[in-house]
Amino acid sequence: MYTIDLNCDLGEGFGAYRIGNDEALIPLATSVNIACGFHAGDPSTMRKTVRLALEAGTAIGAHPGLPDRAGFGRRRMEITPQEAYDLTVYQVGALQAFVHAEGGTMQHVKPHGALYNMAAQSAPLAEAVAEAVRRVDPSLLLFGLSGSELIRAGRKLGLATVSEAFADRTYQADGTLTPRSHPHGLLTDPQQAADQAVRMTIEGKVRSLDGQEVSLEVQTVCIHGDGEEALASSRLIREALLAARIAIRAPQRQQEGGL
Amino acid sequence: MYTIDLNCDLGEGFGAYRIGNDEALIPLATSVNIACGFHAGDPSTMRKTVRLALEAGTAIGAHPGLPDRAGFGRRRMEITPQEAYDLTVYQVGALQAFVHAEGGTMQHVKPHGALYNMAAQSAPLAEAVAEAVRRVDPSLLLFGLSGSELIRAGRKLGLATVSEAFADRTYQADGTLTPRSHPHGLLTDPQQAADQAVRMTIEGKVRSLDGQEVSLEVQTVCIHGDGEEALASSRLIREALLAARIAIRAPQRQQEGGL
Amino acid sequence: MYTIDLNCDLGEGFGAYRIGNDEALIPLATSVNIACGFHAGDPSTMRKTVRLALEAGTAIGAHPGLPDRAGFGRRRMEITPQEAYDLTVYQVGALQAFVHAEGGTMQHVKPHGALYNMAAQSAPLAEAVAEAVRRVDPSLLLFGLSGSELIRAGRKLGLATVSEAFADRTYQADGTLTPRSHPHGLLTDPQQAADQAVRMTIEGKVRSLDGQEVSLEVQTVCIHGDGEEALASSRLIREALLAARIAIRAPQRQQEGGL
Amino acid sequence: MYTIDLNCDLGEGFGAYRIGNDEALIPLATSVNIACGFHAGDPSTMRKTVRLALEAGTAIGAHPGLPDRAGFGRRRMEITPQEAYDLTVYQVGALQAFVHAEGGTMQHVKPHGALYNMAAQSAPLAEAVAEAVRRVDPSLLLFGLSGSELIRAGRKLGLATVSEAFADRTYQADGTLTPRSHPHGLLTDPQQAADQAVRMTIEGKVRSLDGQEVSLEVQTVCIHGDGEEALASSRLIREALLAARIAIRAPQRQQEGGL
Repeated sequence: MYTIDLNCDLGEGFGAYRIGNDEALIPLATSVNIACGFHAGDPSTMRKTVRLALEAGTAIGAHPGLPDRAGFGRRRMEITPQEAYDLTVYQVGALQAFVHAEGGTMQHVKPHGALYNMAAQSAPLAEAVAEAVRRVDPSLLLFGLSGSELIRAGRKLGLATVSEAFADRTYQADGTLTPRSHPHGLLTDPQQAADQAVRMTIEGKVRSLDGQEVSLEVQTVCIHGDGEEALASSRLIREALLAARIAIRAPQRQQEGGL
Repeated sequence: MYTIDLNCDLGEGFGAYRIGNDEALIPLATSVNIACGFHAGDPSTMRKTVRLALEAGTAIGAHPGLPDRAGFGRRRMEITPQEAYDLTVYQVGALQAFVHAEGGTMQHVKPHGALYNMAAQSAPLAEAVAEAVRRVDPSLLLFGLSGSELIRAGRKLGLATVSEAFADRTYQADGTLTPRSHPHGLLTDPQQAADQAVRMTIEGKVRSLDGQEVSLEVQTVCIHGDGEEALASSRLIREALLAARIAIRAPQRQQEGGL
Repeated sequence: MYTIDLNCDLGEGFGAYRIGNDEALIPLATSVNIACGFHAGDPSTMRKTVRLALEAGTAIGAHPGLPDRAGFGRRRMEITPQEAYDLTVYQVGALQAFVHAEGGTMQHVKPHGALYNMAAQSAPLAEAVAEAVRRVDPSLLLFGLSGSELIRAGRKLGLATVSEAFADRTYQADGTLTPRSHPHGLLTDPQQAADQAVRMTIEGKVRSLDGQEVSLEVQTVCIHGDGEEALASSRLIREALLAARIAIRAPQRQQEGGL
Repeated sequence: MYTIDLNCDLGEGFGAYRIGNDEALIPLATSVNIACGFHAGDPSTMRKTVRLALEAGTAIGAHPGLPDRAGFGRRRMEITPQEAYDLTVYQVGALQAFVHAEGGTMQHVKPHGALYNMAAQSAPLAEAVAEAVRRVDPSLLLFGLSGSELIRAGRKLGLATVSEAFADRTYQADGTLTPRSHPHGLLTDPQQAADQAVRMTIEGKVRSLDGQEVSLEVQTVCIHGDGEEALASSRLIREALLAARIAIRAPQRQQEGGL
């Protein structure tokens, strides 16, 4: 039987600000990535979001980002690998404390936004992030873009990795994502996105923008909840996966232990 | 034989900014309180400071503060107990991750500046801070002002507490500190400060500003390193304690365990 | 003929975050207070909000707040008068630059949240804020709570002041606001709020919570737009004022000139 | 007679943090660039630094930087031209308010660090920064790297520009700076730096790293004050210029007016 994880970003509010629709999105996901106070989130939001995830029974991950709240962590910054290591340790540790305080266990780490993209392409940044995860807790799963430097770095350091693919993005023949800025970077038809999710999971393949078959390792698919449209699309993806008799469940930690 | 701990604040730099003289101060201390990125410090400074402390063999504590970098955490802010809890969990967790990543163990938590003072006077804030420490790791020691609400709250929640006194501050007849703003709030003569440290430790007493004998529980004394004068005074306190045959050493964790 | 100004807070978003409903609220107001990047707002939001106000033809004011984005500027902080002066000059100057860049003129300054309340009660803080406004541009109007230290300080320094009252808050016999935390601190019935606004404007009086007549200088009334209920209430206040033949218009600058 | 301006960065402290040696450096400079609270500086530091500059009689400029205090504005960030415009208007306005409040006049704007470098190379970012300066006050001088996109953009928009060269950096044959990371990127011999400053000023030429003569427009030279060595080198540059009978003075605003 095929299995897939559905992950989503959660806890992106800050102070009086709200963003996303955590309550509506969480029942659709099996893993949640909780913002850690750098690009989004704050201590109070982290506590509440951890409780929400524990009540929902989803697996919990840290979602560390660049120190750029004004840019929501989406603007690339010229940071060194050492800085990437340091800000990952810091943020993972902060979230871990909330998870422990609530009696839970943290399952994974998935970098956010520009940090995710930079760690997908740059081997030194990827190794810095992976090393941070390993040193905080070697039993944590490392989520990264399928085929990326981050996945490679995680494996090299002995971490269990989880390869992520996107249902609503198009791919190039070399397996990389078409940029969002490209006119066909996004699959705007929810049914197409759902079909792509199913095919990725069962066949491990996606058809590239120029019509080629591309092999892709896929263990988790990212879903979104900003606005009714995104929510509806996420629900359709979930239903299509279930209709195809794919089990939706969180990836398993290889072993208990660690920190 | 009498024993006392000497604690100091460390790792208060931020980005390109340096403050204090960590290298000169650390050989004098047995416990260090490391800033956690809210009032001072940042991920890179935390990593370096943790390493410095591990190399020096001092006990390591988290030094959480108010989210007020511009005010160095010294300005009181009207925060709720829930906010105090949340920001303590966050900062303690962040530092703990660096300590774990470097292979060490965190020993204690001492709130900083206005948070320290607010938790000394307000029972609800004190309980919130103590509860945060307890939930992150119940084997952590809680440092607080001798006779304060924070010490009371820590004991009530079953934490091992460490009562702090100040060699260079004067006391009131009720055991509280004379405000810094008072013309005689500070002992400016280093020899007087050293004498007060010795007497506090051996007799558990201090003479109040109006000449009365005040009993005081003292397990740790705070030393400073900002400027040559503060360093010289810290050295004198240390020498006076040793000359009085007082053992200077970090307080012991009651038990191993926790997180 | 009676006249009144209706003012509202605007531009409180930050980065990817939105709050309030500026587009719906602005047609109801004659003066807008634009957040300046400390408690809320950011450079891009300020530019857009200034343009929105210029297009709507409302008078524009700076809305400086405490440096506490996580607390939305609502938590009191122990700042000195000098710090209050400095942060007011900074924020007023920043907004003024956007207004000038767009070809407009800034009309007033109204402190936000805890800074507003602190400057209402503390004469030294009030004088610091008023002095900051005066030194940046002495022709700016200073908005403050009716009967407050801020209004007193503005007059003392020769500024034109605008006294603010609240349609939806109850008053004490001494003319101060009943705290929000009081069970009867807020007028939850929109019709009562509208009636209070009309009576304040025409008679300069309000009935205190314990039934006494209280005289009140009222030149501007604050309206809100967070949520449909607040918007509906703001609309009702506006309609009631117009029905009572009260002209709704922005206060006039005493003189052109200044910076 | 030849003239040159000597400019330096000032007011880079933040809260309790100090950096640089403003008091020692300011007598050597004729123009100062004051940090505006994004990469460094804060409202109180800005007020003090403006006063210091007014007392010293140096020309005052705003020194806007990227919103990256942890990185001191030295890390490139992927910002849009619109964001560059917005953050420049904001910071220039904030400093301008302090200058006006103290009775002075602002003379120029020089971007800091990564923003300076990005605006030197990217025409869209350069035009955004120049447009921000023009819209805040078209009589402000725009300081930029000699031969850069920023100088070109300023001229295109009708601003008076001031071309900056570096006494202590080496140049490439195309007139660009050798990167700092290059083993010969810096002239470590103060005498060589002083000689280069004199030759730049009198001949408008510099010898490139590979031995070619490069023409360079030079109206201002940057000096530093971080540490005794930098101060000594700055003093030597100043003395060498004076010994060569070069007048050291601030560039003149083309016209009074503006804001």
